Amino acid sequence: METVVNAATSVDGKLSTRQRRQVRISGDADFDRVDRLRAAADAVLVGVGTVLADDPHLGVKSEDRRAERLRNGRAANPARVVADSRARTPPDATVLDDDADTYLLVSAAAPTDRLDRLRSAGATVIEAGTERVDLQTAFETLDAEGPDRLLAEGGGELIFSLFEAGLVDELSLFVGSILVGGRDAPTLADGEGFVDDFPALDLVSVDRLDDGVVLRYQVVSD
Amino acid sequence: METVVNAATSVDGKLSTRQRRQVRISGDADFDRVDRLRAAADAVLVGVGTVLADDPHLGVKSEDRRAERLRNGRAANPARVVADSRARTPPDATVLDDDADTYLLVSAAAPTDRLDRLRSAGATVIEAGTERVDLQTAFETLDAEGPDRLLAEGGGELIFSLFEAGLVDELSLFVGSILVGGRDAPTLADGEGFVDDFPALDLVSVDRLDDGVVLRYQVVSD
Repeated sequence: METVVNAATSVDGKLSTRQRRQVRISGDADFDRVDRLRAAADAVLVGVGTVLADDPHLGVKSEDRRAERLRNGRAANPARVVADSRARTPPDATVLDDDADTYLLVSAAAPTDRLDRLRSAGATVIEAGTERVDLQTAFETLDAEGPDRLLAEGGGELIFSLFEAGLVDELSLFVGSILVGGRDAPTLADGEGFVDDFPALDLVSVDRLDDGVVLRYQVVSD
Repeated sequence: METVVNAATSVDGKLSTRQRRQVRISGDADFDRVDRLRAAADAVLVGVGTVLADDPHLGVKSEDRRAERLRNGRAANPARVVADSRARTPPDATVLDDDADTYLLVSAAAPTDRLDRLRSAGATVIEAGTERVDLQTAFETLDAEGPDRLLAEGGGELIFSLFEAGLVDELSLFVGSILVGGRDAPTLADGEGFVDDFPALDLVSVDRLDDGVVLRYQVVSD
């Protein structure tokens, strides 16, 4: 399973303000680029923090692209995958609607009653790890379910965990021409942070888009 | 006085690790670019955090460039300016050596005995503000001392304060092909952060350099 991380940050690496309020970082051309990435993906992954903050749909917005997926014998939308150690996804979250399959990656610490409710709401639960979801193991199970191409959209805690677990193949980053600031504002990669053995990236392409720039990197394997 | 902010960050906007340890984010071509910026500057500004963490010299490294400055009737090195509300710069800090003039921007909260020691060590003290240095007022005084072109090199607290005070004209950012991560790692712009009225930037140029990319922005005035 190939994993592409895609995100949009301010010039100072922020995904949103310190209040976790979304900021319009990119423009229409970048929204279309993200929609193209989603249309090419078999599954879209986010952390539960993103589900709780933004209640996203994660589907393909373009009707033409959905139709093309159907013509190619695929589902109209990629599956939704939520990294959600304690099963905090609300059963009425938009990611659980009928527009696509939904997987929850949980740990053994997820309460059974919540899992039951989420299964009733249509989610497929993948359990790995004790306190926090073990992404490596969860990805192996997910991989066996079929997705070849996974698009990870954030937030910063999830993106750091993916890099920490060595699960990222490619990073695609829109850098918007805006400064957000804030020592407590979420960044592209939060978590504990690396202090050595930093993931090395290979800058593949640089393209101006809207009023910003898209940087594409391949992750250099050890 | 024109103020250019220059910095190098990881792809996730970090200036260093959560331990404040410097990381080699850029390479020789970028070091040379920074040296060229210093050689063009009349003064180089850093926050006291940077002085305490890195004890930098802030001088022009290239002998040719220093010689050229002298031929043009300028000092060999730009003046050093430290934003240092409470005068925490150690009297034996490298920025106080004899290679260039040094200004300390302090607030009324800076203890007199420290100021006396720093003046004895050769610093020129500019006081503005009560608890924290009032950068706008301090810049007016500094401006009257002569510098036309100020290069601000960080860290993230100072850079945020400069943007907050509306004192930045240009931002020059090397984005290195490395991921650092860490919700507590210093970023390009820390401080409180903006929640609205974000500074808008105009992307002037995009240039690949070393294994990263240099993004140059003009700050759009209100």
